[in-house]
Amino acid sequence: MAVYTKVTDRDLQHFLAEYDAGGLKSFKGIAEGVENSNFLVETEKARFILTLYEKRVSAADLPFFLGLMTHVAAKGLPGAGPVADRQGLTLKQLNGRPAALITFLTGVSRDDPSTEDCAALGTMLARFHAATADFAMARENDLSLSGWKALIERCGVAADKCAAGLSGFLAEEYETLALAWPARDALPRGVIHADLFPDNILFSGADITGLIDFYFACTDFYAYDLAVCLNSWAFDSAHRFKPDRAQAMIAAYEAGRPLQADERKALPLLCRGAALRFLLTRLHDWLHQEPGALVTVKDPLEYKAKSDYFRSEAFRETLS
Amino acid sequence: MAVYTKVTDRDLQHFLAEYDAGGLKSFKGIAEGVENSNFLVETEKARFILTLYEKRVSAADLPFFLGLMTHVAAKGLPGAGPVADRQGLTLKQLNGRPAALITFLTGVSRDDPSTEDCAALGTMLARFHAATADFAMARENDLSLSGWKALIERCGVAADKCAAGLSGFLAEEYETLALAWPARDALPRGVIHADLFPDNILFSGADITGLIDFYFACTDFYAYDLAVCLNSWAFDSAHRFKPDRAQAMIAAYEAGRPLQADERKALPLLCRGAALRFLLTRLHDWLHQEPGALVTVKDPLEYKAKSDYFRSEAFRETLS
Repeated sequence: MAVYTKVTDRDLQHFLAEYDAGGLKSFKGIAEGVENSNFLVETEKARFILTLYEKRVSAADLPFFLGLMTHVAAKGLPGAGPVADRQGLTLKQLNGRPAALITFLTGVSRDDPSTEDCAALGTMLARFHAATADFAMARENDLSLSGWKALIERCGVAADKCAAGLSGFLAEEYETLALAWPARDALPRGVIHADLFPDNILFSGADITGLIDFYFACTDFYAYDLAVCLNSWAFDSAHRFKPDRAQAMIAAYEAGRPLQADERKALPLLCRGAALRFLLTRLHDWLHQEPGALVTVKDPLEYKAKSDYFRSEAFRETLS
Repeated sequence: MAVYTKVTDRDLQHFLAEYDAGGLKSFKGIAEGVENSNFLVETEKARFILTLYEKRVSAADLPFFLGLMTHVAAKGLPGAGPVADRQGLTLKQLNGRPAALITFLTGVSRDDPSTEDCAALGTMLARFHAATADFAMARENDLSLSGWKALIERCGVAADKCAAGLSGFLAEEYETLALAWPARDALPRGVIHADLFPDNILFSGADITGLIDFYFACTDFYAYDLAVCLNSWAFDSAHRFKPDRAQAMIAAYEAGRPLQADERKALPLLCRGAALRFLLTRLHDWLHQEPGALVTVKDPLEYKAKSDYFRSEAFRETLS
């Protein structure tokens, strides 16, 4: 969360002149997004988020992300959509960085979602999967098995600095998941968001008014997207599992897209996979944090606890 | 520039419930201010900046800063003003920090101000000094002579890591200024902004629509405020002095508040003092930067170059 690339009033006025967006009224750098520079821009016509893509997002993936955002918004979902300039371009350059102007969405993300919020998310997730079904582009999930393996190798025994025995757990959990993970065509798949944490959903009252941050979207099992949401929405702030939230989310999802028997059966495994994914990326950031850096490093062990829960009998009972 | 204290949707909703500000529509952490946490908050009624005061601002000074902001806004200047809650309080608490809700001002700061912008600033500075004349509170300038001395001692010979011979220059310049600095009542004094850099002035077209960041305001010579502005507005981005800008600023200031002969005579010295002040605070931050921290440390030597310029015959000629 930061602003990495400086943008002056003059830079921005030149940039906006290529759009039919009206004159600049105000702009502020905002503390949002993982490693991009984001600005809240107000013109005479509307408000926008201006994103300059920094090193963590691969420029080659930007047409997929921006295309997906456009596609989803065109389907009527409240997704943040890139704005086209007068030539019809959405992917632009500003100060040497790939850049996009994106619609601003009103709403507030929930820090500690209620059961009702989880139901609203389940409904929206099913709508999202329906909306992406005819999106023509694809992108491999680089944070699935092969990505986890690479992260485990990069963390190595240093993982034990975070918690005793963690490197052993990671190796063992990876082996188990690699053996049991569903084959590519074993479960229904399509374009998923893959990072639909509470931060990335905006609410106004009881309604979802925004889906944001599409920069991990990829092609993978639909049920894996639900597994990511169970990891990030169905635990309270003390990391205790809340069965009501999980059940409400799954029931609402199924009202839009019923799960097949094999998807439901795979759900505990997919949840363990998603827990490993967030454990690993957080662990990697934790091990590579720069002393004194202002970025708040999130606790990797939150996802070790969740992984433990998803292996329990209690979770299987919640699903049945 | 950062968000140091986390604020959740629930924290903010409780906080806003004490105001007559309407329901929360959106909020974003913004990358603004030196060491405070700032959020852009939108409610059903208006937009605000929510500031949580972190360690760099002394809590004891907050009544002065907030009182000044209220006073200046009440005089009709486009200054950011704190909003009172239903009990009439402007200084509040949120998540263990002193906090204030402040009016949001539209406008864009100039990265490289024009001569006309400098004239607009001069006019506004004279209006600001007129507006503060009957403000009842006072605050010592802790970044004048005694503050410079303390910073020079804290930097010590480490200053030479920034530039060869810098520690010697600082000691010598301080001695010269300490000997020649005007006595407390030698020049007209009152409440000054003391940090009116281009970042802290918002423009809409040719008009100033915002004065922000009052957290260095103090009681000192009016002409010292002008000296701070000459340091920060009258040089281009390559740090070359622009006489047109300085002359336009001073002429516009004098249209509102004519300088006395002794103020005009003291101006080169006051400009050197202001250059030393920014050189020292930047040097201190430069020497104490944490490796890898995301805060952009500003170049101290920009103000060494400006200090050199203010000692030159060329500057004296500009003023005559």
